[in-house]
Amino acid sequence: MKNTIKVETPVFDTLTLKGQIIRKLLDKHQVLAINIMASPGAGKTSLILKLIESLKNKFRIAVIEGDIVPIDVEKIQKQQIPVVLAHTGGACHLDSVMMEKALKKLKLNELDLLLVENVGNLICPASFYLGTHKNIVIASVPEGDDKPYKYPTMFKGADLVVLNKIDHLEHDNFDLQNFIAGVSALDPKIEIIKVSARNGLGIAEIVDWIKLQSKNNGK
Amino acid sequence: MKNTIKVETPVFDTLTLKGQIIRKLLDKHQVLAINIMASPGAGKTSLILKLIESLKNKFRIAVIEGDIVPIDVEKIQKQQIPVVLAHTGGACHLDSVMMEKALKKLKLNELDLLLVENVGNLICPASFYLGTHKNIVIASVPEGDDKPYKYPTMFKGADLVVLNKIDHLEHDNFDLQNFIAGVSALDPKIEIIKVSARNGLGIAEIVDWIKLQSKNNGK
Repeated sequence: MKNTIKVETPVFDTLTLKGQIIRKLLDKHQVLAINIMASPGAGKTSLILKLIESLKNKFRIAVIEGDIVPIDVEKIQKQQIPVVLAHTGGACHLDSVMMEKALKKLKLNELDLLLVENVGNLICPASFYLGTHKNIVIASVPEGDDKPYKYPTMFKGADLVVLNKIDHLEHDNFDLQNFIAGVSALDPKIEIIKVSARNGLGIAEIVDWIKLQSKNNGK
Repeated sequence: MKNTIKVETPVFDTLTLKGQIIRKLLDKHQVLAINIMASPGAGKTSLILKLIESLKNKFRIAVIEGDIVPIDVEKIQKQQIPVVLAHTGGACHLDSVMMEKALKKLKLNELDLLLVENVGNLICPASFYLGTHKNIVIASVPEGDDKPYKYPTMFKGADLVVLNKIDHLEHDNFDLQNFIAGVSALDPKIEIIKVSARNGLGIAEIVDWIKLQSKNNGK
């Protein structure tokens, strides 16, 4: 575990600056970019697959997968849209340097919507600005209703909270009101959409939300 | 997000060394320490509560909770055993410095078993040696059967993999054989115990496993 760190520049500032450059690049090409964050297994990839199904006739979509293995990349590839693995090298989050490398493999002038699947983690990804326009945080019913209370930074930064696996409500001891109150206490403006990526429930609402963001973004 | 990092010493080496010192301290007091790692919501605290119930008549137990909020600490406190919040300051893992601070609040000469609940994360905690004797990694059925393939470092470092929420098998499209094959491919010696922390299934097997580790540890 020998690993010498010798850095004398303000790392976060450099990364934030790079994020701002990415944002300008995305805006120049009128690409709406959404950063999707969640725990491992909350349903990020499943949701992305459902969104592609519903949106690919309206938007030219690409996906960036923050990961160390191409398991999810292969799932997205079956949808016949551009997908890039942003290799995180074992880091627990994406950053703007990884994003920049991944973006170079995409033709931005041929895209309308970029879905970025961040690393499965409710802590670190919240601290790294990627240049994306909106944050979707996915929680899932089996994880429990205490997640907004335990990971406030992540949920506070969300523009939209997707509560996935809502079909598990009947099996799990999940207090929906407690979950909603936890999110609202952080920021009452955060929208919450209840979803089952498995059976499609609530997907249409997210699709409408994305269309609205795209409209607001100048499309 | 301004944050200047200026470090010129081998950080990981220092942390590993401190972990080794902690290990010696634990051994001196004949305290078996177990590092419990998992995704957010996989059931770490629920499992710890079940283990306390089953073990507190045999072992003098304490718990260290790696967290930023005392939600889980309060749950453990109801069991009338010593519990300490190791404040992670927003880091996505425990390290040996946080452990050292937490240990100072415990009377090691009055303990037999220390359960350490790491931060909910399947990446970073695998890289930080805490001085603990054994690693339990909890996966849960709703997270999906691909987790050992997606987080190989975490699962490879496990002495015991607990597959929790096994009562969800009937609701989820979880391929048990694929999960087991994924763990075995990393290390065929890793034991896997199927558990439902909710209904108590499999808890007795983990209790037996801990008793065996304690015996091997010289108790």
